[in-house]
Amino acid sequence: MDIRKTTINNIRVLSAEMIDKANSGHPGLPLGCAGIGYELYAEILKHNPANPDFIDRDRFVLSSGHGSALIYSLLHIFGYGLKMEDIENFRQLGSAATGHPEHGLVKGVEATTGPLGQGISNAVGMAIAESMLAAQFNKPDIKLIDHYTYALCGDGCMMEGIESESASLAGTLKLGKLIVIYDSNGITIEGATDVAFTEDVAARHIAQGWQVLKVASGEDIDALKAAVLEAKAETNKPSLIIVKTRIGEGSSKAGSASTHGSPLGAECIAEMKKSMGWEYPPFSVATEVKAHIKELSKTFAGYESAWNKLAEKYAVKYPEDWQIFKDRMDGVGPDLTQIESIWTDEKEEDATRNTGGRALCRIAEYVPGIVGGTADLVPSTKAYIKNGGDYGPENRAGRNVHFGIREHAMGGICNGIALHGGFIAFSSTFHVFSDYMRNPIRMAALMQLPVFYVFTHDSIGVGEDGPTHQPIEQTASLRLIPGLDVYRPADYSETASAYVSAVTGGRPTVMVLSRQNLPALHSGTKGLKGAYVVAGEGKPDVVLLATGSEVSLALKAKDLLAGDGINARVVSMPCVEAFERQSIDYQNEILPVGIKRIVIEAGATAPWYKYAGSDGAVIGIDSFGASGKANKLFEYFGFTPERVAEITKEKLGK
Amino acid sequence: MDIRKTTINNIRVLSAEMIDKANSGHPGLPLGCAGIGYELYAEILKHNPANPDFIDRDRFVLSSGHGSALIYSLLHIFGYGLKMEDIENFRQLGSAATGHPEHGLVKGVEATTGPLGQGISNAVGMAIAESMLAAQFNKPDIKLIDHYTYALCGDGCMMEGIESESASLAGTLKLGKLIVIYDSNGITIEGATDVAFTEDVAARHIAQGWQVLKVASGEDIDALKAAVLEAKAETNKPSLIIVKTRIGEGSSKAGSASTHGSPLGAECIAEMKKSMGWEYPPFSVATEVKAHIKELSKTFAGYESAWNKLAEKYAVKYPEDWQIFKDRMDGVGPDLTQIESIWTDEKEEDATRNTGGRALCRIAEYVPGIVGGTADLVPSTKAYIKNGGDYGPENRAGRNVHFGIREHAMGGICNGIALHGGFIAFSSTFHVFSDYMRNPIRMAALMQLPVFYVFTHDSIGVGEDGPTHQPIEQTASLRLIPGLDVYRPADYSETASAYVSAVTGGRPTVMVLSRQNLPALHSGTKGLKGAYVVAGEGKPDVVLLATGSEVSLALKAKDLLAGDGINARVVSMPCVEAFERQSIDYQNEILPVGIKRIVIEAGATAPWYKYAGSDGAVIGIDSFGASGKANKLFEYFGFTPERVAEITKEKLGK
Repeated sequence: MDIRKTTINNIRVLSAEMIDKANSGHPGLPLGCAGIGYELYAEILKHNPANPDFIDRDRFVLSSGHGSALIYSLLHIFGYGLKMEDIENFRQLGSAATGHPEHGLVKGVEATTGPLGQGISNAVGMAIAESMLAAQFNKPDIKLIDHYTYALCGDGCMMEGIESESASLAGTLKLGKLIVIYDSNGITIEGATDVAFTEDVAARHIAQGWQVLKVASGEDIDALKAAVLEAKAETNKPSLIIVKTRIGEGSSKAGSASTHGSPLGAECIAEMKKSMGWEYPPFSVATEVKAHIKELSKTFAGYESAWNKLAEKYAVKYPEDWQIFKDRMDGVGPDLTQIESIWTDEKEEDATRNTGGRALCRIAEYVPGIVGGTADLVPSTKAYIKNGGDYGPENRAGRNVHFGIREHAMGGICNGIALHGGFIAFSSTFHVFSDYMRNPIRMAALMQLPVFYVFTHDSIGVGEDGPTHQPIEQTASLRLIPGLDVYRPADYSETASAYVSAVTGGRPTVMVLSRQNLPALHSGTKGLKGAYVVAGEGKPDVVLLATGSEVSLALKAKDLLAGDGINARVVSMPCVEAFERQSIDYQNEILPVGIKRIVIEAGATAPWYKYAGSDGAVIGIDSFGASGKANKLFEYFGFTPERVAEITKEKLGK
Repeated sequence: MDIRKTTINNIRVLSAEMIDKANSGHPGLPLGCAGIGYELYAEILKHNPANPDFIDRDRFVLSSGHGSALIYSLLHIFGYGLKMEDIENFRQLGSAATGHPEHGLVKGVEATTGPLGQGISNAVGMAIAESMLAAQFNKPDIKLIDHYTYALCGDGCMMEGIESESASLAGTLKLGKLIVIYDSNGITIEGATDVAFTEDVAARHIAQGWQVLKVASGEDIDALKAAVLEAKAETNKPSLIIVKTRIGEGSSKAGSASTHGSPLGAECIAEMKKSMGWEYPPFSVATEVKAHIKELSKTFAGYESAWNKLAEKYAVKYPEDWQIFKDRMDGVGPDLTQIESIWTDEKEEDATRNTGGRALCRIAEYVPGIVGGTADLVPSTKAYIKNGGDYGPENRAGRNVHFGIREHAMGGICNGIALHGGFIAFSSTFHVFSDYMRNPIRMAALMQLPVFYVFTHDSIGVGEDGPTHQPIEQTASLRLIPGLDVYRPADYSETASAYVSAVTGGRPTVMVLSRQNLPALHSGTKGLKGAYVVAGEGKPDVVLLATGSEVSLALKAKDLLAGDGINARVVSMPCVEAFERQSIDYQNEILPVGIKRIVIEAGATAPWYKYAGSDGAVIGIDSFGASGKANKLFEYFGFTPERVAEITKEKLGK
């Protein structure tokens, strides 16, 4: 038998076995796409399983993450280092072969996927990153960066809005090195896709600026290879290769919706093996397949050694650029806390969206890997790197990406840029619309990616645009996402802290910035600790704990309270998460045990009781906002020094 | 001058004036679409401003909600009752003319809009609702329901993924009575749209099953009218009418991005008035325009009286159907708390996703207005009305909608179905993907719509699918949305409470249901109060406050504690919001003041400190989940009776 066919059979058998043993998983895709997967790993991808991280490798994203068994079979068979033991414990606690593929847990998984549509947006981000690095570093004689980005997706991804957003932007940006393979099997969980999905996917992508190619059968891997060559030949458009497949192909249940998410069962697997003539024991790789892969590995090693030679030549001829490139890829940069210009601002009063814009530009000067953009809101959110240039087909080196009004895709694309390596990617929109991109933010937190979010127009300070545009619960609700830092700065210095933390902290970071002016606190780098004392000497009678726009309100309330003989300490807490990473000693120093606390934040109150405790108070907003001038709204919603002082006195029993 | 032109000028002037006086707002659209707006209200819409709620009116959604000045001008000029005083106080606190149009605040605003793309999905929902009502109530001789749904949207809406999802479903469903007008002005906030948006919107919609028509100029209202006639003639496809407009048309700043969101300024307005020959005082409606509207009003009144006659005839000939129809439109139904079958379940142990499926079917029998569906997950979430039929082009009476894998659109479409009247609409998907539809949930809460959400596969009970599919922070984060009820039921009876509250409570309601089995508590209607005592006699030493899957854990911990002589009360709190609406007496009865509380919920902890206080504890999860068997995961994350008992004793100092 053709060794290619044998290897494909091996992928099918191994995938079915791991799912059956786990009694959990999705055999439909791994069987239906076994041929596609084989062809990608054997003949299409420029990769080296022996060194999965080699920089100029082609990227491959399994956007249909539920088909994880496919990628585990491929990674094991092709020698990526995923152990058979993990595969035998597929989906069990502690196994690297988790339910959906997790980046960082398994070498060769370029992105954690599962939530449908996200992987496509990640792939668009990777293709953008590749083109940026190429433009920034390639030389006429040496193409240091020159690879393709592939994604495999199914009907589910195609129905998701984030796919359409991503495809529309990819077409606009003419990402010629992006190749998406669409596993078109006509089946989803509820049955035939045409119950809910009759659109002409090919025509839609053509309308969005793509080249569309068709392969009549997922079993015809030569046709797939030919289509990929055609895709590569079109350098001015991303390509969609629509491959007709049968879900669960190779088994007697092929074509049935039940194979999507239910194990095939021992009988069906035995039957499948018999029809293939497969006689190896469970969980094995056939001897001839091993030999085949060994043969292929020479080619794979060749890909890397060719690039290594190129890189050596580059390092000699362009040593400065090489150093910058290396630093970019390794995430090495200067100590930003020591750079005075970053911590110095000229304004005594300004909106933090403006201070944020300045902090971004100052930091971006020292950190060339920062790239990103807004969802059509540069004039409003100010998240723009001056002198960074605008990224687009005519300027691949540009650092500012115009994402268009596509918040969801923006989030996923930034994840992709970060996943590629060499970048810290930012997104920006109105804070209320962070709701449109909540899943990609969550995915960034899960993957611990170097991305940050500039969300401006916080709370009722938005003013006249009214409740649809006033974030009330968004800040609190983002703080609930594990592994995400949320900064709500009160002034320039805290905004700079937020940026420095975002850029150097290695975790995704949200910054929530104001539309309205706020006075400068001149707190230097103190914000990096998450919370610090802004005002108040000696042992306080009460702590006024505030964030963002409410810090200046707390300061005014403190003055009122002083008139009543009450010594209030004002604590600014720009980042709860950073504060909770400090030592207990530091925490107790800032928030002494036994001293009542009044928390003030123009947002949802519930989570703040953790700090206010049973005997304190939380002054916030638990209803929607309203349309009106910002100052009137703050008054209307009770954010006045008088009310804060009154509530404080009540809590102190005075 | 042509009176139509004069009226259009009046719309332009009034819109520009209100924005200028407010010094806030978006003149670009109101000016660019003044002709479209006029033509809709004067000659296209079947409506009656004298009675904006007349049931069979055409629906019109201003999806580009930032163009609110346009709709306010139209509503005032056409006699909808919006006062000039409100217009003069446009965007000021207390004015009905808020920054973005708010449903319920102003008659004639069919949907609160602003977040881009939502309005289109609302319109799709309204068109679905119309077709359902028509199929359910129309007779061969009397078409009781027979109206169109219109939406006006701009480039922003077109770029949003939710628009593509909605368009794709609308095409699949062949919604022939949906007509979307696309204000194509080629300008967005960052400048020319082609920076980020070069897709062929017409071709994309054709691919998605739409008829696409083009009007060369927004000033050519006769051409628009002709296009609408063509749209109506195509009964098998929704229609997109692409109208070329100039942003800020009529002013000297026409065509400039600055007119999108900045007032024109006094000078520019003066100039505009001069070029129009406009000599009326500010904030006025021209005498001839008033006369013109008076003339038109006869037609408008005729629309309603014709329908009233039809309805009278229907009421006589089909009195039973008429009564059902009336009840549907008025939201009248039986007292569900008194219907035994709803509160009776046969199983002693079951997953709440299953109990939810049964509760839905039992309640749906008594509440014919319940319709909805899942994002391709019926076999998983069980949210399906048996005997309800499947909605589609062949069965418009079906109550189950197959939304496809389009969570975001599903949310917006359900809002539209509810906004139409006559329905309680539900959406369903995996709980973790509520993140994909957070904005429409928020919009439902803002509008207080009768919609509910069946979100299943809660927390680590999801098991093998792993962290991408395990909601940790979702429940807590939905609770932060003002005006939304979130139920996390522990068994069938609590699930029934959640459903009954959702259906009769008049507010949007989320129910978070388990994948895994949970034991029955047989608590009858107690869950309707939000929290109640499950077990524990007399004065408790400690309260174990738990929700959902953790209630049975609390019961086991209680037994352990009893062994140590500790009398623990177990309180189940399926709905925090419902509990907080109870009297203080009831609240204190359930949670006695001074008794320590241990809160147990397999989710984010921070918001629970409100109940745990400074001296209690919260047992939850603040990291992402993991892939593994559910029971192993609960152990791994510390959800064991032993650990709960241990922490409790520690807190009690025992």
